[in-house]
Amino acid sequence: MTRILLLGAGRSASSLLHYLLRHAAAEGWQLTVADVNPAHLAPVLAAHTEYARAVTFDIQQEAQLPALVQQADIVISMLPALFHLPVAKACVQYRRHLVTASYVSEEIRALDAEARAADIIILMECGLDPGLDHMSAMRALADIRARGGVLTAFRSYCGGLLAPDSEGDNPWKYKFTWNPRNVVLAGQSTAKYLENGHLRFIPYQQLFARTTPISVAGYGDFDGYANRDSLSYRAPYGLQDIPTMLRGTLRRAGYCAAWQAFVRLGLTDDSVHLGNPADMTWATLIESFLPAVAGAQPLAERTAAYLGLDPAGPEMQRLQWLDVFGARPVGLADATPAQLLERLLTEKWQLQPTDHDMIVMQHTLDYDLAGVPHRWESSLVVLGDDATHTAMAKTVGLPVAMAVRRLAAGLLTQRGVVIPTEASLYEPILDELAADYGIRFDEHETSRAAVESL
Amino acid sequence: MTRILLLGAGRSASSLLHYLLRHAAAEGWQLTVADVNPAHLAPVLAAHTEYARAVTFDIQQEAQLPALVQQADIVISMLPALFHLPVAKACVQYRRHLVTASYVSEEIRALDAEARAADIIILMECGLDPGLDHMSAMRALADIRARGGVLTAFRSYCGGLLAPDSEGDNPWKYKFTWNPRNVVLAGQSTAKYLENGHLRFIPYQQLFARTTPISVAGYGDFDGYANRDSLSYRAPYGLQDIPTMLRGTLRRAGYCAAWQAFVRLGLTDDSVHLGNPADMTWATLIESFLPAVAGAQPLAERTAAYLGLDPAGPEMQRLQWLDVFGARPVGLADATPAQLLERLLTEKWQLQPTDHDMIVMQHTLDYDLAGVPHRWESSLVVLGDDATHTAMAKTVGLPVAMAVRRLAAGLLTQRGVVIPTEASLYEPILDELAADYGIRFDEHETSRAAVESL
Repeated sequence: MTRILLLGAGRSASSLLHYLLRHAAAEGWQLTVADVNPAHLAPVLAAHTEYARAVTFDIQQEAQLPALVQQADIVISMLPALFHLPVAKACVQYRRHLVTASYVSEEIRALDAEARAADIIILMECGLDPGLDHMSAMRALADIRARGGVLTAFRSYCGGLLAPDSEGDNPWKYKFTWNPRNVVLAGQSTAKYLENGHLRFIPYQQLFARTTPISVAGYGDFDGYANRDSLSYRAPYGLQDIPTMLRGTLRRAGYCAAWQAFVRLGLTDDSVHLGNPADMTWATLIESFLPAVAGAQPLAERTAAYLGLDPAGPEMQRLQWLDVFGARPVGLADATPAQLLERLLTEKWQLQPTDHDMIVMQHTLDYDLAGVPHRWESSLVVLGDDATHTAMAKTVGLPVAMAVRRLAAGLLTQRGVVIPTEASLYEPILDELAADYGIRFDEHETSRAAVESL
Repeated sequence: MTRILLLGAGRSASSLLHYLLRHAAAEGWQLTVADVNPAHLAPVLAAHTEYARAVTFDIQQEAQLPALVQQADIVISMLPALFHLPVAKACVQYRRHLVTASYVSEEIRALDAEARAADIIILMECGLDPGLDHMSAMRALADIRARGGVLTAFRSYCGGLLAPDSEGDNPWKYKFTWNPRNVVLAGQSTAKYLENGHLRFIPYQQLFARTTPISVAGYGDFDGYANRDSLSYRAPYGLQDIPTMLRGTLRRAGYCAAWQAFVRLGLTDDSVHLGNPADMTWATLIESFLPAVAGAQPLAERTAAYLGLDPAGPEMQRLQWLDVFGARPVGLADATPAQLLERLLTEKWQLQPTDHDMIVMQHTLDYDLAGVPHRWESSLVVLGDDATHTAMAKTVGLPVAMAVRRLAAGLLTQRGVVIPTEASLYEPILDELAADYGIRFDEHETSRAAVESL
């Protein structure tokens, strides 16, 4: 019997939990699902009470975490990333394995030696992005290397978006399937990447203005903006000397130029509390970010003029659709601009029960094979089943769940702090995703000459 | 006998220390000057050894601070602002008075009740800005109120600049007389102020583009940019209902537009380490912030085109003067852009022994008197004596020193956390500054009609 503890069973854990319940009886698992508000779990667990139970869990209550960890063999943390450190420390202390879908922080990386000494694996970055991006990239890189190819460029983009059938009249073609705060604060540092051997930096105030157009066959056009740090995966990917390396995030074409209007107005700043009343209107808020002028030009026109935008153009249409020039109250007193924007968008960009989301990932790998330039492109598109089993929940949760299943079966022998860049880790997961869930990359390869003649 | 402890005797403490030594014998003080590197104090203290001594002080050595505080009656902290909290806590614990020139932080404000209970004063914001700005504004406000005036607008600017005779060929007309890091990071939050009853916000990326021209008779033209928070002094100044309130910082005309080029390039970001080698050139650094383009246009022209600047205009002339398009090495590996810019400017903007600095402060107060709009303008210009007794050191240090003298004489009866907004605190200091140091405001008052007809 393997005792599995799942910490955090919110929206993004639905597919993960479903997988665990589906396999628990056959695999001989005892499953404890610990959530701050476990009421919603009762119907989910109803048919599985022999081997699954829900408990109320509050990470602020310090005694709870060690007690739960001690009673488990494998811990899965789907908590917000900032809580992973205490979880990882408890796992080291009680010698329990840990699996998460979140980035390795410096603090967690520092636990590597202790985790090895405790004979445990702390398997991180095992979801979508980070996760599936590593796995699919490493598989492609291994294939190219096995044939003697020399990598010259690695470009990879991923985005959590809306399926075309759910984009409706929303000109942003975006709703939240993930933490809204992270979307509002996205990119608030200088992005760095490599291009033809040169370091490239894009400061936040230019990030959404300096995007790359990306197309995915059958799914149309996207904007790609650079992630904060494209350089840190050179070593894990074995690409220390690659001249071009860029990782980015996808939004639908047109989103970034409109978002740039919010950035330039100052509405994404989270560092200042405005001292505003809660009943301040959005029109007053927008106006307060404009220079004072004489005259009675309508606010939307003043905003367009200030930003140098066409008053009837696509950026202003997107702002208008969000109702930011009207009398809607901002709803929070003494808030930061980013908090006010998040509050508005959480309403306007709420995923409806009938909506389907969509994950898009695309890698473009350039390499030389016997002196001939080649390009490998692989694209993944995953559509959500519904507002519970979203594409986001599937692609984040299933790789975690599959890794846990293999860990429980004694098939993962790595120890310490690990990400899934080894074939023994990623191959079975990519195979199972393709075979059982239809989550597979569409891959094709051409010589560069053929690509450029298209 | 009063025992006075001065913590931190760096460049900005020169005039403060000089004042203390000048009065120590007559006032019966025993003076301890604690500095991390007290060697430079030996010649200064040589003629005062009966009542003044220097000690080596490292705030990281935890036992030192309580020992020194216990042996003093009054503590002056000229340490960097982040160290004031442990100093203030020690002063509360050992019931010693404390005087500083720094802003009251939330943590220090929270010590108010404990300080009152300990029967001590924690007198903060008693330097230049904050300090002299409060004192001179409150004096003017008191005068206007005594005559029945009703305030409608409060605008106040201050800057630490170069005296005209030292501006030379430096087109920025700026050198460092204060912490260079603070200058590089200045304004990195949304500025907020009040204008005609409306809250106004300026995000960082617009701050140096949305400046106000300020003139001071006899000293020429300046740019004023808004300080981070102009609203928080409404209550201390008794201006809760004033429709217009703005506090700002002065630079020489043209500085801000050129600084905006650095902001837009991304060179003031302190949140990302670039992974650069130390021998990277400034040209390469600048190039790495530009979008890649084909062709061989010179870097300065590409930069001007990217920023929408005239290649021969005043902004580009200022960048050229700093040598940022040349082969000079950046000199620091894996640094933030802000660290690299600070390193360059620390060399280019270094105050020379023959240089004179200049403090400029200007208040403009609008008010109605018997229904007639009036304007009170007061301006202060202080020139440095030399590179030691700078205008900055005089205006920051002398108010602190004068407050300490009065505190030692038993003339300050306030207790708790206090700033100098009460007449009993500021009147004697303003009088002494004017009488003994010629540091006086040039004040004049007109009816608004007269102003507007100019």
